[in-house]
Amino acid sequence: MRTFAVGVDAGGTSCRARLTLDGTVLGEGVAGSANPRQVGLEAARAALEAAVRRAFAAAGLPFEPARVSLHAGVAGLATEADIAAFTAPPHPYAALSAEGDSTLTLRAFFGGEPGVLLMLGTGCIALARARDGRLLRRNGWGFPLERGGGADLGLEALRLGLAAWENGEDTPLAARLRAEFESPRAVMDWARGKASGDYARFAPLLLEAHAAGDAGAAAVLENWAALCRRLVAELRAESAAVQVGVWGGLAPALLRLTELEGRIEPRMGPLEAAVLEAERLRV
Amino acid sequence: MRTFAVGVDAGGTSCRARLTLDGTVLGEGVAGSANPRQVGLEAARAALEAAVRRAFAAAGLPFEPARVSLHAGVAGLATEADIAAFTAPPHPYAALSAEGDSTLTLRAFFGGEPGVLLMLGTGCIALARARDGRLLRRNGWGFPLERGGGADLGLEALRLGLAAWENGEDTPLAARLRAEFESPRAVMDWARGKASGDYARFAPLLLEAHAAGDAGAAAVLENWAALCRRLVAELRAESAAVQVGVWGGLAPALLRLTELEGRIEPRMGPLEAAVLEAERLRV
Repeated sequence: MRTFAVGVDAGGTSCRARLTLDGTVLGEGVAGSANPRQVGLEAARAALEAAVRRAFAAAGLPFEPARVSLHAGVAGLATEADIAAFTAPPHPYAALSAEGDSTLTLRAFFGGEPGVLLMLGTGCIALARARDGRLLRRNGWGFPLERGGGADLGLEALRLGLAAWENGEDTPLAARLRAEFESPRAVMDWARGKASGDYARFAPLLLEAHAAGDAGAAAVLENWAALCRRLVAELRAESAAVQVGVWGGLAPALLRLTELEGRIEPRMGPLEAAVLEAERLRV
Repeated sequence: MRTFAVGVDAGGTSCRARLTLDGTVLGEGVAGSANPRQVGLEAARAALEAAVRRAFAAAGLPFEPARVSLHAGVAGLATEADIAAFTAPPHPYAALSAEGDSTLTLRAFFGGEPGVLLMLGTGCIALARARDGRLLRRNGWGFPLERGGGADLGLEALRLGLAAWENGEDTPLAARLRAEFESPRAVMDWARGKASGDYARFAPLLLEAHAAGDAGAAAVLENWAALCRRLVAELRAESAAVQVGVWGGLAPALLRLTELEGRIEPRMGPLEAAVLEAERLRV
């Protein structure tokens, strides 16, 4: 009986599975966060299974996990121990392997070649495969330590909006906060116990404010671009890699703000790269 | 039977009670945080009572709360509803009143006169009594929204130290982090679920790094001083007050970095101001 190769790309907010057979895409399915650091290991594995189940349903096929070789790139898998816990039996699949979403995306961009990758999602992590094969990292420290991701930019949007609101200035950010909250105190109350994804929701407001000519937003984004350039420059120097990739929801915003020497488009998407790994796993 | 007047100054990390009788200080007692937003209402009221009990013990007197008129300035009491909940019966005292620690300190500095107060503890709040009697506020948004307090500076110290550590630079901050943590990842793991006070513990490292000539720390502290000056300038403009006070653990550091026009020393400490209120309450 032939085995399905299923690739999964699991970022900070959602998890997408692609079901293939002999190189043909049969269907895709989406579920919630499969990041075990955010939702816990059990919920993360359940999200993975839900995405696979929906891919079977989209293909009009019965769910047959015992015929599935699955490879997943999952946000929050940072160490070998994380990966071992995520892939530990019992699980319903014929074969299961996983890695961090960042190393999967690194491979999607560069194959096994040297390269520097800047991932700009809810978080911000810079990763490089060096000429000598080593894997190098910068940033990616998690909220609130980390600068440069959507959570950080969203927090800056809130700070700028709150300061303008308190000061009676009618900036775009203050207007957006006034539309959503009753008072500056309501923003403070909202903020209690919130996680990175909650803050990341406000990052687009910062980009909109910048487009509308807001000087505070422009200053924040200038610092952001400088941080991103610095991370790439440090990893290029250390890895001796030339090519640079930028990925994630904030990638277009960064590329409007700054040029990055040696930038390339990815060879394939992370989902395609995950399917390739699943096919290797099956063999 | 004569009533004791007890004043309490309760900041973000500890709570200090001063026991007096007819203007004479008999003893003082210290307990943990009485900030109901941090530790919950019950624990906050228990900390208050523990501090009062220890003040009686320090005076060599039996604990007689029914003979106590108590006024407390408490971090985290921001609204009338907060104050009503904190002082609600049943409680063991003959009389009990409370206010935010910031309005108590405002009175300690200026009496009822107009003035601008910058409180630089774990948090950063700017407060003013205007010429027309209104109470004005800026900042004080709580962690992580808030800039300018010890928690913010401590977070910046961690960020600078992590970046230098990752980059193999031997800065004072990187050295301090290496002494305390096994790896950058251990810092990330430490950071999960930490509160403002945990970050504030690292603020002194930033000041030490600045003293040791660290350029990154100097840049952060320059921005910090600019923020503090801006908050004071905004409130002076809006309140028409001339005098400026600076209070809290980070006040000396700010005053080394920048001059603030119209700055005065407080008329009395917040504990003395709380005792005065307690004496009024007794009458």
